[in-house]
Amino acid sequence: MKFFSDNAAAVHPRIWAAMQAADAPDTAYDGDRLSQRLDAAFSETFGRPVTALWAATGTAANCLALAAMVPPHGAVVCHREAHIEVDEGGAPGFFTHGAKLILAEGDGAKLDPAAIAAAIDPIRPDVHQVQPHAVSITQASEYGRAYTPDEVSAIGALAKARGLRLHMDGARFANAVAHLGCTPAAVSADAGVDALSFGFIKNGGMSAEAIVFFSEGLADVVRFRRKRAGHLQSKGRYLAAQILAMLEGDLWLDNARVANAAAAEIAASARDRLIQPVEANEIFLTLSPAEAAALRAQGFEFYDWPAPAGAPGAARLVTSWSNDPAHVAALARALAAL
Amino acid sequence: MKFFSDNAAAVHPRIWAAMQAADAPDTAYDGDRLSQRLDAAFSETFGRPVTALWAATGTAANCLALAAMVPPHGAVVCHREAHIEVDEGGAPGFFTHGAKLILAEGDGAKLDPAAIAAAIDPIRPDVHQVQPHAVSITQASEYGRAYTPDEVSAIGALAKARGLRLHMDGARFANAVAHLGCTPAAVSADAGVDALSFGFIKNGGMSAEAIVFFSEGLADVVRFRRKRAGHLQSKGRYLAAQILAMLEGDLWLDNARVANAAAAEIAASARDRLIQPVEANEIFLTLSPAEAAALRAQGFEFYDWPAPAGAPGAARLVTSWSNDPAHVAALARALAAL
Amino acid sequence: MKFFSDNAAAVHPRIWAAMQAADAPDTAYDGDRLSQRLDAAFSETFGRPVTALWAATGTAANCLALAAMVPPHGAVVCHREAHIEVDEGGAPGFFTHGAKLILAEGDGAKLDPAAIAAAIDPIRPDVHQVQPHAVSITQASEYGRAYTPDEVSAIGALAKARGLRLHMDGARFANAVAHLGCTPAAVSADAGVDALSFGFIKNGGMSAEAIVFFSEGLADVVRFRRKRAGHLQSKGRYLAAQILAMLEGDLWLDNARVANAAAAEIAASARDRLIQPVEANEIFLTLSPAEAAALRAQGFEFYDWPAPAGAPGAARLVTSWSNDPAHVAALARALAAL
Amino acid sequence: MKFFSDNAAAVHPRIWAAMQAADAPDTAYDGDRLSQRLDAAFSETFGRPVTALWAATGTAANCLALAAMVPPHGAVVCHREAHIEVDEGGAPGFFTHGAKLILAEGDGAKLDPAAIAAAIDPIRPDVHQVQPHAVSITQASEYGRAYTPDEVSAIGALAKARGLRLHMDGARFANAVAHLGCTPAAVSADAGVDALSFGFIKNGGMSAEAIVFFSEGLADVVRFRRKRAGHLQSKGRYLAAQILAMLEGDLWLDNARVANAAAAEIAASARDRLIQPVEANEIFLTLSPAEAAALRAQGFEFYDWPAPAGAPGAARLVTSWSNDPAHVAALARALAAL
Repeated sequence: MKFFSDNAAAVHPRIWAAMQAADAPDTAYDGDRLSQRLDAAFSETFGRPVTALWAATGTAANCLALAAMVPPHGAVVCHREAHIEVDEGGAPGFFTHGAKLILAEGDGAKLDPAAIAAAIDPIRPDVHQVQPHAVSITQASEYGRAYTPDEVSAIGALAKARGLRLHMDGARFANAVAHLGCTPAAVSADAGVDALSFGFIKNGGMSAEAIVFFSEGLADVVRFRRKRAGHLQSKGRYLAAQILAMLEGDLWLDNARVANAAAAEIAASARDRLIQPVEANEIFLTLSPAEAAALRAQGFEFYDWPAPAGAPGAARLVTSWSNDPAHVAALARALAAL
Repeated sequence: MKFFSDNAAAVHPRIWAAMQAADAPDTAYDGDRLSQRLDAAFSETFGRPVTALWAATGTAANCLALAAMVPPHGAVVCHREAHIEVDEGGAPGFFTHGAKLILAEGDGAKLDPAAIAAAIDPIRPDVHQVQPHAVSITQASEYGRAYTPDEVSAIGALAKARGLRLHMDGARFANAVAHLGCTPAAVSADAGVDALSFGFIKNGGMSAEAIVFFSEGLADVVRFRRKRAGHLQSKGRYLAAQILAMLEGDLWLDNARVANAAAAEIAASARDRLIQPVEANEIFLTLSPAEAAALRAQGFEFYDWPAPAGAPGAARLVTSWSNDPAHVAALARALAAL
Repeated sequence: MKFFSDNAAAVHPRIWAAMQAADAPDTAYDGDRLSQRLDAAFSETFGRPVTALWAATGTAANCLALAAMVPPHGAVVCHREAHIEVDEGGAPGFFTHGAKLILAEGDGAKLDPAAIAAAIDPIRPDVHQVQPHAVSITQASEYGRAYTPDEVSAIGALAKARGLRLHMDGARFANAVAHLGCTPAAVSADAGVDALSFGFIKNGGMSAEAIVFFSEGLADVVRFRRKRAGHLQSKGRYLAAQILAMLEGDLWLDNARVANAAAAEIAASARDRLIQPVEANEIFLTLSPAEAAALRAQGFEFYDWPAPAGAPGAARLVTSWSNDPAHVAALARALAAL
Repeated sequence: MKFFSDNAAAVHPRIWAAMQAADAPDTAYDGDRLSQRLDAAFSETFGRPVTALWAATGTAANCLALAAMVPPHGAVVCHREAHIEVDEGGAPGFFTHGAKLILAEGDGAKLDPAAIAAAIDPIRPDVHQVQPHAVSITQASEYGRAYTPDEVSAIGALAKARGLRLHMDGARFANAVAHLGCTPAAVSADAGVDALSFGFIKNGGMSAEAIVFFSEGLADVVRFRRKRAGHLQSKGRYLAAQILAMLEGDLWLDNARVANAAAAEIAASARDRLIQPVEANEIFLTLSPAEAAALRAQGFEFYDWPAPAGAPGAARLVTSWSNDPAHVAALARALAAL
């Protein structure tokens, strides 16, 4: 019973079907009919004309977007625990040719305008110090916390006022939108986001994320840089097929709702243990080593997590569209019984 | 009837089956059971202990390998028409952090020791000039020409004598080996190749190439650089599944033989037109604009190609495992009838 | 009366004389007789065979050294207030091709083994996180604090145990050695330092620092990278001349002693105001805005500095070999009179 | 009697005087009074408002300018024998983060619009091929050939038509202008050049070149990149002093005229040997090994050069402002006597 990562989840049957339907030979790279439909599909999803490119990983999506926003001599403001800082093996430095990450603080791995200002206000506007050019926020955050439309808008307003671009790492964008019940545009395009890494892989896809550009000029540069980074797959139609199937009938939202509901069910059984409010498909809870061992003895798999001050231990549980409901119920019961 | 690129071919049924068999949740990235089997599978294929990593594109495979072989201040010798020079959007410069490509000459887009020496001998061994650190050759070449074991060995010997690493771009390695009838090791590991980009995507795969390391120390660096380049896919098991299915029962050779046979059939019908000997799955032939139009009117799709001196025009035809035999026969007849 | 930076100080007469003595045409770049003498001169200074290269700035010296120690996918541990982090415009990211700086804490901008361990111990040894490859410390530190031989040795031992290279930013190495009264080797080569940026520009030079390599193999790479970074000056003899004149008769130590004595004289007049012990040529002291204004009204120039908690304000005063003793005495009196 | 490189020449007395006059402490980096005067001084020289920055080497000047003109995924067109291709140790790849050099052909190491078009016309405008973003020409060329105003204008017009920036490597700009007898603007700003590396070091300076920007927006980026490349010297006033002294009273032209006259005198004595017209301060001539030995036996120092087809050998002679007229006359006599 696997609750350690949504990265490990299976591929959704409708994704398989869409990929197989794409099997007929077609133009290579992104010249195929499916890749050519991405702009229209995302424009419908976001209610405005957008440009969208596929990429095989969230790291590539994030870093290609950032590299179009920040020069090598610039910097990106992000949370101290952001994926781009902590878990991407230095990819931002590679794609941007050495731009810096300026680390800001915030509960639940979320930023707000004050935290961003606190990080950049001390920077002297001279050539001796690296100047910020962009902000990157994660929706949902590394702790499964969702930014509301107002929260994103406030950051968007700050970014605009300071002349900074705004990037959103949406590896779990679907889970955040499903939780918020808003339109996808409300927490992205409407709120000042310039480019969104829209994740599908954790949500039932196999190997396709999208980079959605709300501001002009960025996509053209990324097309060249995607090729240069070895990310322009020759059989791109299989990536486009995954994404189109995800958007069709809002499968992305349905899958996220299933994952979120599983997380909510588990969280409801462990209210007193929660370290963070559960606003997506991740649950962070206190758990003593003995309790963790007891759960594992029952067949539950999950990662330990650094314990907050005063707690004997902690764990991270992640749900996905593919969790067996019986496993979810079993985990909820097991937690309640601890 | 598509003969413009093996990049456009369909995915082989056994690859589909293997991918679907990998659907059960497993450890993310390359910690899954399938990815963990790659070293053993390739060690068997090459008859010695090797290390192998998957990558989603040939460009990534080539450039990750090269970046482990050449420092940013160094250079790679390759053919003037090599894919890394002509068709990878500057990816070698990106992955190596600015190393140069030193261009050498040779018929059929093939190098030999004399051509390599001619390119590097004039370089003064001082800091003002960029020093070569590696050689990259393409098997089969951009013109569908195969290097024999002796030819690779001669280049390998030169490389060793000059202190250069040897990389092989094997986007069509299968076609070359099928043509030569040798072991895969005979034109790679045995011949002094340090790292091979072993292509599967043009040969019936979907999205997985392998980088096979015959020399120690390179793979460890590439593991970090693969992640840093956004090429460590979270559901890596689907890439490993493709590769393992290709190696199993030598599907890679069977598919290449089918493609090569189709190319041979077409070539046999147009002997007088051939610009290059057909040693893999590509046919380069002279074709006047009127002839090209006539073929296209019959439903054959292919690319025009720069004409050799004195010819009224030229074309490139590429076959793959998935060409309908009837289409191949029809094309052969049509060419014979011109 | 300028106390704002030793960067602004005049060039020492003996440096002028040495440069002019180098005026006869000689081989370009570093092939001249003076540049060829650097290794021997520094070998004598450090009591062992070393290799030394000139560079025109401390930033170049630091970053060329670091780039030889850390791969693009690696990281350097340094203090949160280190010059390479705060004041070099992102140069480490440029020279290393995007390696990270891992920031550690410590009083007086000094590191110790515990601080370094605290910064790197949480890093998982996997490809998702950037791995440390080197440590960089500053002697004297950004707050004018000197590392004793034992302190450097302790860091050197940790570095060796962890497989990390050790770099020393010695922009004010002379001031530290003059303060400590030890040999230059005692706080560098003997203590495990692999490469030292040995500063001369703040200490009476014009445009020449040295990178001194105590470990083999590093200098050869830096020779190529120095050229590639545009730092191989064609009339290198004028840089070598400065450095040789500095080493001759220990002018570097004499100049540093003068600067340190001036700092000590000023510090002695303001004991209660000192924020940091004065161990080189920098004085950090509390100073209210009114007091600062009063000093400036008397003609003293200096920079304000972020005030420590509870203080009404702070300032940084820097002395150099070229301060007029009367100005120093005047400043000491003025401070005492506040 | 040294005729091997103008890089080896002595520093002009008026440059020494200007540097020493700059010795009084002043603001560090480029905040000093002299550096602040550069824009005005060059604006007068070029008869229009320009921005100018100092840099310590021609390589840095060239590559900082190019990096502001071409993105990492782009390319610069230059001559196959351009200094940036042949003699800068890969610096363009470093400063531009991996942009390519596209090599074009031309007699005397000069380009013309047809040669540039021949190099870039075959490039497909897609992401698989690296797109040109700039052209770089060298004035005077690597073979001491000067571009006339019309020739530069023709290239400028092509560049503008193709959307390319135009850079001029003016390591010997002074010699070319002195030869042409035109205004400096006529072969740069008036002719469509966006940025000029204006060389002074070969012409009597010590360590200062200028990057002169005729197009807006470039200088601001270069300011940040200069610091990031370790090229913002802390005692920048000594570089600015050199440049201002060079511009004052047109010392740069006077020195170039002396060097050119020496070259003309030597060339006049060896008319039949000239491989290239002498249009600056370099003489390329045929010279058998025995003749070369005979000259060297008389005390003349110079470099051998690759011989043109049919010639028994060749040599390069370079003059500078500092050649003793007696040495020049002696060399002319010795050549005539061969």
